[in-house]
Amino acid sequence: MKIRIGFEFVYDFVAPTPMVLMLNVHLSRAGDLIKPDLIRTTPLLPLTRYTDGFGNICTRLTAPKGELGIFTAALVSDTGLPDVVAPDARQHEVHELPHETLVYLLGSRYCETERLMNEAWARFGKTPQGWPRVQAICDFVHAHVRFGYQHARATKTAAEVVIERRGVCRDFAHLAITLCRCMNIPARYCTGYLGDIGVPPEPDPMDFSAWFEVYLGGRWYTFDARHNVPRIGRIVMARGRDAADVAISTTFGPNTLKRFVVRTDEVVEEPAQLDLLERKVA
Amino acid sequence: MKIRIGFEFVYDFVAPTPMVLMLNVHLSRAGDLIKPDLIRTTPLLPLTRYTDGFGNICTRLTAPKGELGIFTAALVSDTGLPDVVAPDARQHEVHELPHETLVYLLGSRYCETERLMNEAWARFGKTPQGWPRVQAICDFVHAHVRFGYQHARATKTAAEVVIERRGVCRDFAHLAITLCRCMNIPARYCTGYLGDIGVPPEPDPMDFSAWFEVYLGGRWYTFDARHNVPRIGRIVMARGRDAADVAISTTFGPNTLKRFVVRTDEVVEEPAQLDLLERKVA
Amino acid sequence: MKIRIGFEFVYDFVAPTPMVLMLNVHLSRAGDLIKPDLIRTTPLLPLTRYTDGFGNICTRLTAPKGELGIFTAALVSDTGLPDVVAPDARQHEVHELPHETLVYLLGSRYCETERLMNEAWARFGKTPQGWPRVQAICDFVHAHVRFGYQHARATKTAAEVVIERRGVCRDFAHLAITLCRCMNIPARYCTGYLGDIGVPPEPDPMDFSAWFEVYLGGRWYTFDARHNVPRIGRIVMARGRDAADVAISTTFGPNTLKRFVVRTDEVVEEPAQLDLLERKVA
Amino acid sequence: MKIRIGFEFVYDFVAPTPMVLMLNVHLSRAGDLIKPDLIRTTPLLPLTRYTDGFGNICTRLTAPKGELGIFTAALVSDTGLPDVVAPDARQHEVHELPHETLVYLLGSRYCETERLMNEAWARFGKTPQGWPRVQAICDFVHAHVRFGYQHARATKTAAEVVIERRGVCRDFAHLAITLCRCMNIPARYCTGYLGDIGVPPEPDPMDFSAWFEVYLGGRWYTFDARHNVPRIGRIVMARGRDAADVAISTTFGPNTLKRFVVRTDEVVEEPAQLDLLERKVA
Repeated sequence: MKIRIGFEFVYDFVAPTPMVLMLNVHLSRAGDLIKPDLIRTTPLLPLTRYTDGFGNICTRLTAPKGELGIFTAALVSDTGLPDVVAPDARQHEVHELPHETLVYLLGSRYCETERLMNEAWARFGKTPQGWPRVQAICDFVHAHVRFGYQHARATKTAAEVVIERRGVCRDFAHLAITLCRCMNIPARYCTGYLGDIGVPPEPDPMDFSAWFEVYLGGRWYTFDARHNVPRIGRIVMARGRDAADVAISTTFGPNTLKRFVVRTDEVVEEPAQLDLLERKVA
Repeated sequence: MKIRIGFEFVYDFVAPTPMVLMLNVHLSRAGDLIKPDLIRTTPLLPLTRYTDGFGNICTRLTAPKGELGIFTAALVSDTGLPDVVAPDARQHEVHELPHETLVYLLGSRYCETERLMNEAWARFGKTPQGWPRVQAICDFVHAHVRFGYQHARATKTAAEVVIERRGVCRDFAHLAITLCRCMNIPARYCTGYLGDIGVPPEPDPMDFSAWFEVYLGGRWYTFDARHNVPRIGRIVMARGRDAADVAISTTFGPNTLKRFVVRTDEVVEEPAQLDLLERKVA
Repeated sequence: MKIRIGFEFVYDFVAPTPMVLMLNVHLSRAGDLIKPDLIRTTPLLPLTRYTDGFGNICTRLTAPKGELGIFTAALVSDTGLPDVVAPDARQHEVHELPHETLVYLLGSRYCETERLMNEAWARFGKTPQGWPRVQAICDFVHAHVRFGYQHARATKTAAEVVIERRGVCRDFAHLAITLCRCMNIPARYCTGYLGDIGVPPEPDPMDFSAWFEVYLGGRWYTFDARHNVPRIGRIVMARGRDAADVAISTTFGPNTLKRFVVRTDEVVEEPAQLDLLERKVA
Repeated sequence: MKIRIGFEFVYDFVAPTPMVLMLNVHLSRAGDLIKPDLIRTTPLLPLTRYTDGFGNICTRLTAPKGELGIFTAALVSDTGLPDVVAPDARQHEVHELPHETLVYLLGSRYCETERLMNEAWARFGKTPQGWPRVQAICDFVHAHVRFGYQHARATKTAAEVVIERRGVCRDFAHLAITLCRCMNIPARYCTGYLGDIGVPPEPDPMDFSAWFEVYLGGRWYTFDARHNVPRIGRIVMARGRDAADVAISTTFGPNTLKRFVVRTDEVVEEPAQLDLLERKVA
């Protein structure tokens, strides 16, 4: 399957302002890029790339005063398969977890593990370990929280999501991640593209999505407490402990976001054209 | 049934300090006092009494520098019957609630109704109205929160109790009250004596207890989300919106509490002795 | 001075919904009403009045499904004098405060006295007691918090205002009240009309205002941490411990506020016209 | 100067429990170890070492049921010089900061930058940039917060420290770090040994200390908002975004800490004894 991805943002700045973007496809998917996801700006600006401590590609630039457009359009190859479901993926004992997964057991900005420890153990202490426990957490979060863009708030933490029962995809992810960590299951936050492929189109305009990954049975698996069904065509951009690590843009000064468009579409190859090609070949 | 009640506190003050006490039996039970609950102090101090806006008896005094003992010992007549259970007590529509109950639908210091509105309706919106709904709230709170004196905290609110799942009797009451109010059932906070009458003795030293009342079917009924069983021998001292209204003592300056003893015991009249008395009379 | 006051609200309800309004001029000002502030509704509805535990006039009604207009238009006589300034008003020792003022020393929904105790004593412990201490608190709050309607939030407490430094008039009042109470100065919350009389007109549309009163030198004095200058023409509607006690409307069900207009204008009697009238009479 | 460092902890476990320790001297000081800081346990256990994403040495072990002692005793060479003071160290523009410092501008578990942004700019927006601004932040935090071990709390964040004005060294560090980050100065958290060298001995038993580093003038400088004077003999163990990254021990299960002793002492070499030794040799 081929998926077209892209975005187009327009900012307005009152003064020259440094920015950091995390808007490239993650290195782990870079090999799938048929047409690369070069970030372009209007006006044209010098961009500097680096990778952060989590392996995410970051782009630095200094926005000039006035309007700045940032956009990309790329083509990605994808298996077309839904998120892997592995009910037998077992939960590791803490002592056998790889060193690099341990950081994903700790508390972080939006995931106050120590505050939700009682909640997690009371709710999930008797569920079967491993995959079923993570699925039970997703089922709980999916049922507990109602989605609504009007509920987005930059300071909302997992403990607040439990109380308010309202949020956006990042809030679903933060709550599920926190509960997994409390149960000693490493969990990390992901941002990326997720279009309406194989599902009814959503009425809301497309945005980037947030989901999470847990470490079970020796590898990371994708979970999505908001949608809570396996989905096709996730294109991950960044991974971290929570949203504080992977903001799609960090702006060091005041600004106005004037336009924000994200696109993710399956490329439907038209049979007629293929027919024509075949005849030519013949 | 006759119940002996009393307390004995010793404070230490570094300077003369004003205090307000809410340590008398509530006016609604004053008629049951066989031996009155006069508050005495060592050293002997002038005491001033008044009633607050909720009808509670308050006592003002100025503690001198040094140690201050405050104590009482009284005898109360009680029906000996457990808390009334009235499964048919119906829930009033808001428009038919008496004016004076409306204040018990609003938010207060430890009962953030607007923060727990979603939680309340998600959990109890489908339970049958009236008594069963309040009982469902008590069952939830009783199962959700674990009791422990080490979890007491002067600033803990109902929203924090939901998250932390730990608390003392006041926290059980605050959470249950908040959920009732969210469901439009007037609920008010009570403090008073509650001894181990008709139940196995508790290992912890006796303290005052907190419970709550709801307005159903035209009157106030007692509920106790901590114990969650009808109990015998509650002697109410004060009622209010929450613990902020009915602190047993409010001290306007630093102090150390050196001794804190509360007593509630059924007076067991020994038949043998009575027999002896009768014979003498004969 | 004569002041025209009035409001006009339009709500939309999806179902019949009980409401409580606190929209009448307070009883303490009722004697100044030249034209009474009758509350009217469209459609015409039966209204029930009562006074709450703080002496505020409350109006109950059941809104029908659909649109509901609520309005009044009244004329009030006013001294035309600015808020009293009494720099010598002394602070009472706690032990000499009248009983009924003590409740205004306690914590309440939006005024977490125990959380701000350290802050209050660190900032104001060395200011002169009484009026200068309250003025110091107002000066601090006025400088610390920046006004903006976009910063309004139903759950914002005094402790949050300290951190966020942004708010509306109610937040200024809550913070100042909390700090006064921490310093053992009784402080209560007021809502009412406050027009642009004797001051440059504000660009924002008129709303009700919130301010507060403190008990010094044997009476209550008006303070206003938001404007922080004596103002002319306050018409108080309700007083309470904080905004939780005196919501201008409490609605027990979902609704949409479609129109919200408040008016407060000095009646300028035009000499020319009066002259004309007199001549006609002559 | 030579400094003896060491610790001795005794835990009690109810079941075999995995642990992660960050108790080694940081790699950047490892070259100064005259006698190495080997971690030993009683009973003797297999230990696994790794470095986390911040370059800290971590030690994994599985505590058996029952008592576990963990201890070390080492000897470190130190310059004997106090923390560097560089009033001319300039503040970098964000666009010229090295990539790897940017993570220390973001929010983290205990450092809610977005919540304290207004506070930071209101207080420090007019202070001179660079070293004086960081010093102004330390002066503020040092004066604002009162130290006390009884104020330690695992969940206390920078925003809570501002309100409560009470805390331990970690709270001083969190608040100062958060304010620096809000002002676009990279700041990171440090834990390690800090004895009473060159200062009057503290009455409290020795504990590990927490301080922070800021990036100015092309390098990291040490600041300590708690003590707020240059100190001799800091031996850093771990660095991270905040305390969530560098807990000295993380225990995945219930336990009791029965003994906790930390030692840091300057080795005073006695001339007389050395003389004696030399004579013997002769």
